[in-house]
Amino acid sequence: MLRKALMTTQAEPVDVSQAKVTVVGVGAVGMACAFSVMVEGLCTELALVDMAGEKVQGEVLDLQHGTTFIRRVKVYGSKDYSVTAKSRIAIVTAGVRQQKDETRLSLVQRNADVMKSIIPQLVKYSPDCVLLIVSNPVDIMTYVAWKLSGLPRNRVIGSGTCLDSSRFRVFIAERLNVAPDSVHGWIIGEHGDSSVAVWSGVNVAGVRLRDLNPNIGTENDPEKWTDLHTRVIRSAYEVINLKGYTSWAIGLSTAHIVKAILGNTLQVLPVSTYIKGCKHGMDKEVFLSLPCVLGENGVTHIIKQPLTDEEKALLHKSANLMHEIQMGIKF
Amino acid sequence: MLRKALMTTQAEPVDVSQAKVTVVGVGAVGMACAFSVMVEGLCTELALVDMAGEKVQGEVLDLQHGTTFIRRVKVYGSKDYSVTAKSRIAIVTAGVRQQKDETRLSLVQRNADVMKSIIPQLVKYSPDCVLLIVSNPVDIMTYVAWKLSGLPRNRVIGSGTCLDSSRFRVFIAERLNVAPDSVHGWIIGEHGDSSVAVWSGVNVAGVRLRDLNPNIGTENDPEKWTDLHTRVIRSAYEVINLKGYTSWAIGLSTAHIVKAILGNTLQVLPVSTYIKGCKHGMDKEVFLSLPCVLGENGVTHIIKQPLTDEEKALLHKSANLMHEIQMGIKF
Amino acid sequence: MLRKALMTTQAEPVDVSQAKVTVVGVGAVGMACAFSVMVEGLCTELALVDMAGEKVQGEVLDLQHGTTFIRRVKVYGSKDYSVTAKSRIAIVTAGVRQQKDETRLSLVQRNADVMKSIIPQLVKYSPDCVLLIVSNPVDIMTYVAWKLSGLPRNRVIGSGTCLDSSRFRVFIAERLNVAPDSVHGWIIGEHGDSSVAVWSGVNVAGVRLRDLNPNIGTENDPEKWTDLHTRVIRSAYEVINLKGYTSWAIGLSTAHIVKAILGNTLQVLPVSTYIKGCKHGMDKEVFLSLPCVLGENGVTHIIKQPLTDEEKALLHKSANLMHEIQMGIKF
Amino acid sequence: MLRKALMTTQAEPVDVSQAKVTVVGVGAVGMACAFSVMVEGLCTELALVDMAGEKVQGEVLDLQHGTTFIRRVKVYGSKDYSVTAKSRIAIVTAGVRQQKDETRLSLVQRNADVMKSIIPQLVKYSPDCVLLIVSNPVDIMTYVAWKLSGLPRNRVIGSGTCLDSSRFRVFIAERLNVAPDSVHGWIIGEHGDSSVAVWSGVNVAGVRLRDLNPNIGTENDPEKWTDLHTRVIRSAYEVINLKGYTSWAIGLSTAHIVKAILGNTLQVLPVSTYIKGCKHGMDKEVFLSLPCVLGENGVTHIIKQPLTDEEKALLHKSANLMHEIQMGIKF
Repeated sequence: MLRKALMTTQAEPVDVSQAKVTVVGVGAVGMACAFSVMVEGLCTELALVDMAGEKVQGEVLDLQHGTTFIRRVKVYGSKDYSVTAKSRIAIVTAGVRQQKDETRLSLVQRNADVMKSIIPQLVKYSPDCVLLIVSNPVDIMTYVAWKLSGLPRNRVIGSGTCLDSSRFRVFIAERLNVAPDSVHGWIIGEHGDSSVAVWSGVNVAGVRLRDLNPNIGTENDPEKWTDLHTRVIRSAYEVINLKGYTSWAIGLSTAHIVKAILGNTLQVLPVSTYIKGCKHGMDKEVFLSLPCVLGENGVTHIIKQPLTDEEKALLHKSANLMHEIQMGIKF
Repeated sequence: MLRKALMTTQAEPVDVSQAKVTVVGVGAVGMACAFSVMVEGLCTELALVDMAGEKVQGEVLDLQHGTTFIRRVKVYGSKDYSVTAKSRIAIVTAGVRQQKDETRLSLVQRNADVMKSIIPQLVKYSPDCVLLIVSNPVDIMTYVAWKLSGLPRNRVIGSGTCLDSSRFRVFIAERLNVAPDSVHGWIIGEHGDSSVAVWSGVNVAGVRLRDLNPNIGTENDPEKWTDLHTRVIRSAYEVINLKGYTSWAIGLSTAHIVKAILGNTLQVLPVSTYIKGCKHGMDKEVFLSLPCVLGENGVTHIIKQPLTDEEKALLHKSANLMHEIQMGIKF
Repeated sequence: MLRKALMTTQAEPVDVSQAKVTVVGVGAVGMACAFSVMVEGLCTELALVDMAGEKVQGEVLDLQHGTTFIRRVKVYGSKDYSVTAKSRIAIVTAGVRQQKDETRLSLVQRNADVMKSIIPQLVKYSPDCVLLIVSNPVDIMTYVAWKLSGLPRNRVIGSGTCLDSSRFRVFIAERLNVAPDSVHGWIIGEHGDSSVAVWSGVNVAGVRLRDLNPNIGTENDPEKWTDLHTRVIRSAYEVINLKGYTSWAIGLSTAHIVKAILGNTLQVLPVSTYIKGCKHGMDKEVFLSLPCVLGENGVTHIIKQPLTDEEKALLHKSANLMHEIQMGIKF
Repeated sequence: MLRKALMTTQAEPVDVSQAKVTVVGVGAVGMACAFSVMVEGLCTELALVDMAGEKVQGEVLDLQHGTTFIRRVKVYGSKDYSVTAKSRIAIVTAGVRQQKDETRLSLVQRNADVMKSIIPQLVKYSPDCVLLIVSNPVDIMTYVAWKLSGLPRNRVIGSGTCLDSSRFRVFIAERLNVAPDSVHGWIIGEHGDSSVAVWSGVNVAGVRLRDLNPNIGTENDPEKWTDLHTRVIRSAYEVINLKGYTSWAIGLSTAHIVKAILGNTLQVLPVSTYIKGCKHGMDKEVFLSLPCVLGENGVTHIIKQPLTDEEKALLHKSANLMHEIQMGIKF
């Protein structure tokens, strides 16, 4: 055998390396997550799982064929969850789409059923992992995943408004003609139509925009900055109308969260977390996005932003609505 | 105006920054190229062009929404080539697909017609750019682009067998269980079915595998290493069968070439280049992949690999066939 | 000749590639800047200049020997400024040290004389470059470089309080146990003992620390956060006492500024800029650090932070002192 | 307390994160290693140890002050080895210098005594780590570290000829005007004066230079390529003469090895490994550099290069000399 002629053994390589990431669901979102994580060099091992076995194999091969060009990643996949063993993070992007005339609760139930087939398998093979849920409606699915997993609350996270906040910063940056990462702004609460823009905290170089324009974020603002939040909410629809789906930005957003976790950076990012008992008087077991400190074991702390009464009311409304929907889910 | 209250002007920002890349065609391949180039931080500015204006806008927005998470890139796009002005590299991925019962020449003519609508526009707005052709059949399309562009031969390059060579290295690496970038092997010639594997040069740590297995790459090899070349040739078909198209690996491969050019690295990569007059006795004006030294102005040198008579014959056969097809193209 | 046997020429490589950076002065600071810029892959070409020709050659060789391991950079150096031709950025770290019993003005004059031997040479060979001054006292030396260069104000920048601000963020982050880049705080004004901490803008996730602790940054604060600013001021002395000089942090800080400029990112960073006529009522031709928007052509805008009367008074005091010293310099 | 007002706790952060690296010795070499590892983002945690406690604290502070600018790393240090607990890799750069008229054996004994104070401490606090020895004479010190550690042979590695090989490739690349990473060449055996250049494997794009110049690497070569090996051997002396010590290249070389190990890349690199029983008929317990496959658990395989009789004789001579010296060491 050539291999034997070429090399002698000092020790067998390790079975599974330290920085393994699993992505469940190989649709456009799942693959944008997987590719972003791989190209940014965040993991040493990448497992893809999907019920569509052929599609998984196609994606695995396509990723493998490019591994000569980047920091090495071992890529493999299957319909079978055994390939996910010893993952540090499992990203869940699987889910079904809303059908015509389907009620929201019906959709939630169908996606919860999908979670039932995924979460226990992931936890079985990677009991120490952090679950990062991207499937929509993300806040409720993160709750469902948490319930199904039996994991402590810090280790179940939803991608939440991390992407919404990025869009917000990009739009403000565009208007000011500065870099998005020099604009600081936070979208919190529910990912989607009822998200909350925390205008009081929007700043550049520590300069609160509200101090320059007291009406910013309100209906009375002649410069209509609040349109940017509206654009954030419409962004997903707009992109879907134009190209059919969203992928790149959610991929980069998810990779950003992965980087904070695997790097144990303790960066503060807006992600969906268990909020019962947090500052804002939440008494329901729901997951909503707030600024969270992220480390190897998931969310270590939640930052308590001072909110206006209106902002708090919006958060509570979301929480109550979500709680009600959650009550209707059959586990 | 808030912006005026926030900042005073020292100087207007530059119009177009130094490291601008254009991608023509926003299908799966074009977007994998664009995303790879962006995530790897290779360019400061990225322009997308496609006749499908809505799709372009959707992709532009999706990329923009993620720019908070990576080294800043300015992204924009249009149907109009004026957005490509002052590009350093223009990557062309546009093209039509083979129709049922269509002859190869007919397909070539239709894609050549597509090039007629692209190349003069690119050269008009970026007369100093390097053209990097990815559209298939890539070697002929690179010739067509060169003819249409009027650019010197060094500045028109086809992505060629850079991806084939990566696949080759990945497959060998898999069998040996070492990193793909520690395996050195070159696929040259025509990108696709008639590519040539230069088995004489395949090595790990300078150890020629042929010195360990003299029959490697031949029919007489009991270990059947030549199957790996067959797998390389079948790879595109295999991936297309499994997932419908190829994207990630060609995106990474293209980004790798872009990195070498913009970085003026003088790395040696297998890309499709004008080969008339090169060592192997080529007397036709065709483009085929050989190991090329890449710098800011494109291909500076071609490495002359010693080839067996059989390998040379295969190259000449490809060259003659391509030349014949090229003769039939109406410019 | 082997080279001729190995390769044929398509075109000669370019003379000087696009992303060239020069570092003047190869002491601990200059080399930390050069190494950071190189390892972060920010430039394609790196020129070192110093009167100590042997030292330059040693550093050039040492850097070259490692270029196999990183994204390729062409490194060279000399006593002669002709090696700096066509630089996009020239970083100046050269300077003499304060002698025993030497007055500050005497030191300034001696360093201004050093600048006379450097700046005209840099501008002669790279008339379009951005000058990035690191030599101390950095604000005055940036003024001197600006005067000597004849360049527009946007293209002469001092590294200023970029490092001070980083230290400030690190110390706050340490106390809060979050990532430094999730803490936002700005040190402005003069680099060194009379720098100004803008406590009003210090925030985490948009939450102003002053809103949680109204006395933060004052003498009345029982938690004594102002000690962190004191630590910032003492940092250079502390590091010099412990290891003899500072190097790594100033190197990374300088590389950060280079990244913003070459990437045309329009990021907001605290750097020393020409402030006459900016918001804070400055009427002297001095350079002080304020949050600046950085692009390919240097500082494009200055962010106007609302300052307290005390903060403004400190800035004016620095400006007046610096102006007075500058009046004494013989050009 | 502000911190309590700012955040609520979901979980305490982890004690020690997954990718921790220790560097023992904070001289020029140790700090170049530490800085390279940090800037390349290879570790999440970095511990420095040195008997010179003040120097350690100075270096720790200087690194910490720059952490705002790079992917977050937690940096700390001490004279006490308890700070090294749970390291994945421990890099040892400590050692004494040869004194005037000192015999080689005396130097070796003194450095072996230094190892006695280091290795047991490292193994005590990080029983699962990989030891990466950089201290000179590196091959003997790696043997000493292995003996003292009680670790399996795969987990004790010397930086060996990884740097020599890089220099070799840089010099060849310079002469050919291509990128160093497109030139493949291996220096093996003892790090230093008696290293062996394996000319038979030197290639560009799989083209053996020996096939173009049969006398390459011999005295009969009119192009005198063997001078490049001589330059490799002289490089350390040359750099030391010019700048006083070597640092950057050994730092990058070491970081390259760390990247392969922590990334579990299975890349093939020339490092010093236990060679008794390997192909070349070695029967002594010595460490010499050969191409090794590197993974999370250190050296997994050794590549068996076909060597000429002369090359083998040189290796054996080194091995015997080293074995003899090792016999004289008092443990």
